[in-house]
Amino acid sequence: MNRRSFAANALGGALLVAATAGACAQSSPQPLPRPRMMQQSDVAPLKVAMLVYSRMVTLDLVAPQSVLQMLNSEIHLVGETREPVATDLGLPVTPTCTINECPRDLDVLFVPGGLMGSVACMKNPAILDFLADRGAHARYVTSVCTGGLVLGAAGLLRGYEATAHWAVTHLLPLMGATKVDARVVHDRNRLTGAGVTAGLDFGLTLAVLLRGQEAAERTQLILEYEPAPPFRKGTPVLAGPERVAEMRTGRVWMEGQAWDASLAAAKRLGL
Amino acid sequence: MNRRSFAANALGGALLVAATAGACAQSSPQPLPRPRMMQQSDVAPLKVAMLVYSRMVTLDLVAPQSVLQMLNSEIHLVGETREPVATDLGLPVTPTCTINECPRDLDVLFVPGGLMGSVACMKNPAILDFLADRGAHARYVTSVCTGGLVLGAAGLLRGYEATAHWAVTHLLPLMGATKVDARVVHDRNRLTGAGVTAGLDFGLTLAVLLRGQEAAERTQLILEYEPAPPFRKGTPVLAGPERVAEMRTGRVWMEGQAWDASLAAAKRLGL
Repeated sequence: MNRRSFAANALGGALLVAATAGACAQSSPQPLPRPRMMQQSDVAPLKVAMLVYSRMVTLDLVAPQSVLQMLNSEIHLVGETREPVATDLGLPVTPTCTINECPRDLDVLFVPGGLMGSVACMKNPAILDFLADRGAHARYVTSVCTGGLVLGAAGLLRGYEATAHWAVTHLLPLMGATKVDARVVHDRNRLTGAGVTAGLDFGLTLAVLLRGQEAAERTQLILEYEPAPPFRKGTPVLAGPERVAEMRTGRVWMEGQAWDASLAAAKRLGL
Repeated sequence: MNRRSFAANALGGALLVAATAGACAQSSPQPLPRPRMMQQSDVAPLKVAMLVYSRMVTLDLVAPQSVLQMLNSEIHLVGETREPVATDLGLPVTPTCTINECPRDLDVLFVPGGLMGSVACMKNPAILDFLADRGAHARYVTSVCTGGLVLGAAGLLRGYEATAHWAVTHLLPLMGATKVDARVVHDRNRLTGAGVTAGLDFGLTLAVLLRGQEAAERTQLILEYEPAPPFRKGTPVLAGPERVAEMRTGRVWMEGQAWDASLAAAKRLGL
């Protein structure tokens, strides 16, 4: 095997990947070239809108975004305004367009998680109206982590099976969804992922729907996604009742806020 | 089970997590509060330096950073200057300090990947001198993806077992390392991860070394890291010879650059 050219092509796709500019302003201070992923240059770019908001979880956005941009996507980071938002990691994310500027017809509408930030979105009529409007037209309506609560509050999961971060999935039925305990849940054109790291499994599942199995598999190889966690404690069942009990104490306020926001959304939705 | 308080505590740790400010300037436009992860408030903050550079892969940084910040860490994003760097996703990352301002005694020195950006680092004496200096003192010297090439060029993998993105691991021996085909490789105080998504497995392995098994398991539960890829094509072996052959064509230039930078580093290191 010629390792040099083998490696070269893989990295060409993997590591000189596209910047995220859409029709709106580029957030990067040093815009990068936008090479297309191999085998994808003959397809039209996917129109993707990813909501960004204060206190979001960076990894909830970055993992799906990493997959989507390898599929020849025009990615819009959509903020309520163009002000940079602060994430859980302190890395600011600058919207590339506002909710008013976001294209109307989307292949993918995506909402990341970030609990108190998600709760704020669940109570924000401008955000909810935006999601309801674009969600009614989008080819796929999607979320990861507590982003599922925001879709729910916008009325977009009513009558659908869905999931979210394990700690909040019990709130989904309040907003008309059928809770499913799975890593990724696909019901018609809704695709929801579980907590944080589920963004990778979600992203590859979405890749299959958007670009087919082969393109998704190529993306997986580039991202070298063959996970090997050093231990298996990633769900409440695997973590066991002792750790779960230990994690139950304290911070009741925050969950109360999520609960109240879900009930308020249910009332608005006539549920 | 009381789901409300159960959920609340988990999310308290998971989703209102700390901002990354260290001794240097905060990069966030809206600094967040810095609650500590449960069970970790009685331990001293870990001093962590994460190199950031133009054309880096965002996920290479964000996955390990997400783990580390849940372990009560003081995270420094270290740039050659304080100018924001452009990442593969177009999300700018603003250094919190320069290589000259970075603390001297570190618990963790970390280098993310990003091929042509990594190649540039491999040829940048200021970056290499910084890494060699801090690496000589750091408790753990670490990388993910093509960041391993940068550690190699700084002479930090000479005589150590190591890994990197599958497409470049063959370059590690040129710089004195023993290449190991594994997801995460731990040799004394060196810890290196494979490509991109290996940052999660790497991060949890590092968490065990730094804070012990229980804290690492708690972090895994918060991140809901129980991966379930929809298919298994994430390594050259799993992807099969046909796809690998298909990926061999084109982009030879970039790999040639990595090869040349590795040879130049070997010469500098007297290998």
